[in-house]
Amino acid sequence: MRNIKLTLEYDGTDFSGFQLQPKRVTIQETLEGALSKLFNKPMKIKSASGRTDAGVHAKCQVVNFEIDRTETLWQIQKGLNAHLPHSIAVKKAEEVNSKFHARFSAKRKTYEYLVWNDPARSPFYEKYAVHVMSPLSLAKMRKAAKVFVGKHDFRSFCATGKPAEQKKDTVRHIYQFTVKMEGPLVKFQITGNGFLHYMVRNIVGMLIEVGRGKILPEEVSRILKSRDRRKAPATAPAKALTLMEVIY
Amino acid sequence: MRNIKLTLEYDGTDFSGFQLQPKRVTIQETLEGALSKLFNKPMKIKSASGRTDAGVHAKCQVVNFEIDRTETLWQIQKGLNAHLPHSIAVKKAEEVNSKFHARFSAKRKTYEYLVWNDPARSPFYEKYAVHVMSPLSLAKMRKAAKVFVGKHDFRSFCATGKPAEQKKDTVRHIYQFTVKMEGPLVKFQITGNGFLHYMVRNIVGMLIEVGRGKILPEEVSRILKSRDRRKAPATAPAKALTLMEVIY
Repeated sequence: MRNIKLTLEYDGTDFSGFQLQPKRVTIQETLEGALSKLFNKPMKIKSASGRTDAGVHAKCQVVNFEIDRTETLWQIQKGLNAHLPHSIAVKKAEEVNSKFHARFSAKRKTYEYLVWNDPARSPFYEKYAVHVMSPLSLAKMRKAAKVFVGKHDFRSFCATGKPAEQKKDTVRHIYQFTVKMEGPLVKFQITGNGFLHYMVRNIVGMLIEVGRGKILPEEVSRILKSRDRRKAPATAPAKALTLMEVIY
Repeated sequence: MRNIKLTLEYDGTDFSGFQLQPKRVTIQETLEGALSKLFNKPMKIKSASGRTDAGVHAKCQVVNFEIDRTETLWQIQKGLNAHLPHSIAVKKAEEVNSKFHARFSAKRKTYEYLVWNDPARSPFYEKYAVHVMSPLSLAKMRKAAKVFVGKHDFRSFCATGKPAEQKKDTVRHIYQFTVKMEGPLVKFQITGNGFLHYMVRNIVGMLIEVGRGKILPEEVSRILKSRDRRKAPATAPAKALTLMEVIY
């Protein structure tokens, strides 16, 4: 059996997230459909680096699947791209050793969150950024971002009502968290060993409030330490979130 | 009467170009609809810097209109953005003197054309770039681009079957023409005192053939001098073209 690693790029706008769901169009279902067409038999992926929620995009989602066939990697990539819709593309196909598992082998991940900070909307970022009209303070957001770097219990920033499995261990390690402004575009980039459900969107939701001056950067540490989701502001919208990199 | 200059950004994907056309949804019609709603009476724009074809985008299209009302510029901008669809935004509203005419006062314009040059498609550039799988030579395209800089008769690169008016004067002055590669993205930027219909797309269509090695850079000058549209390659697709700037 060959173990094939695929790197995918997708515009998540029209999908109900990555993971299979009954009666919903998902990335996984669409990809498995393309694999099944290409190999002319029912195909499933073995694993993915993680789920992305409905509306979330990826520049580098990683999955793997096993196949007992002789097609070259380029034939697999090209064939899949021919069967996939415009909104999903296979950027790379690689042969990896049998132990490689897209989820369990992942060491760190990077997400990017975009805010369009301008009095006027942007037609080009409509699907990829959240529009915030009032000016955001870069200095305050950077100060607050620093609070998250390191090993912390992120219970305050975890989705409520999630499976008990995830609730048990809510400690994650954030290696890097940068905030940049490029004209009206604010880019939040966060790298960690893993993320709880909604964690990036909850953290960014709070940073936007800090940037607006509604929450003091000093309060962020207190909210993090409270380990209480009710203390933190609302989850930021999905459409502005993109999975940028998975390191193995 | 106040003369108001608007700077517009739009994603042209779903529009039949800028200019009014019977039974088609155009940028001009949509903008005039928003103006009419805002001022509660039938409104027309006075002029636009130029037409953009169906599918062409703009980061900076300029129009002007006259109004005998006291709303502030911010009220006009905000009100229009509330009435316009997501795909069109007013980036700026300014009061200009009565002589300003968006078309006749324009001194130079810059267009950008994007090519996604990679074996794999890009979901994010699907609507904004042309996909070319085979590697393009930057050196050859740059060499060919230089041929166009200066004052030339661009008859070889003008749309066929256009109104006689335009055919009379096919001389245009190109001030700058750059070709850049940013990873798989190739950016063509061209600035001139004006452009004939299809001119940018015809020139870029030829440069892509040069980059592919199908046409020698040396032949470009001969084709330009021939003043014969039949000598030049096909028009490149509209979706990859964006009006970037209009200088007054």
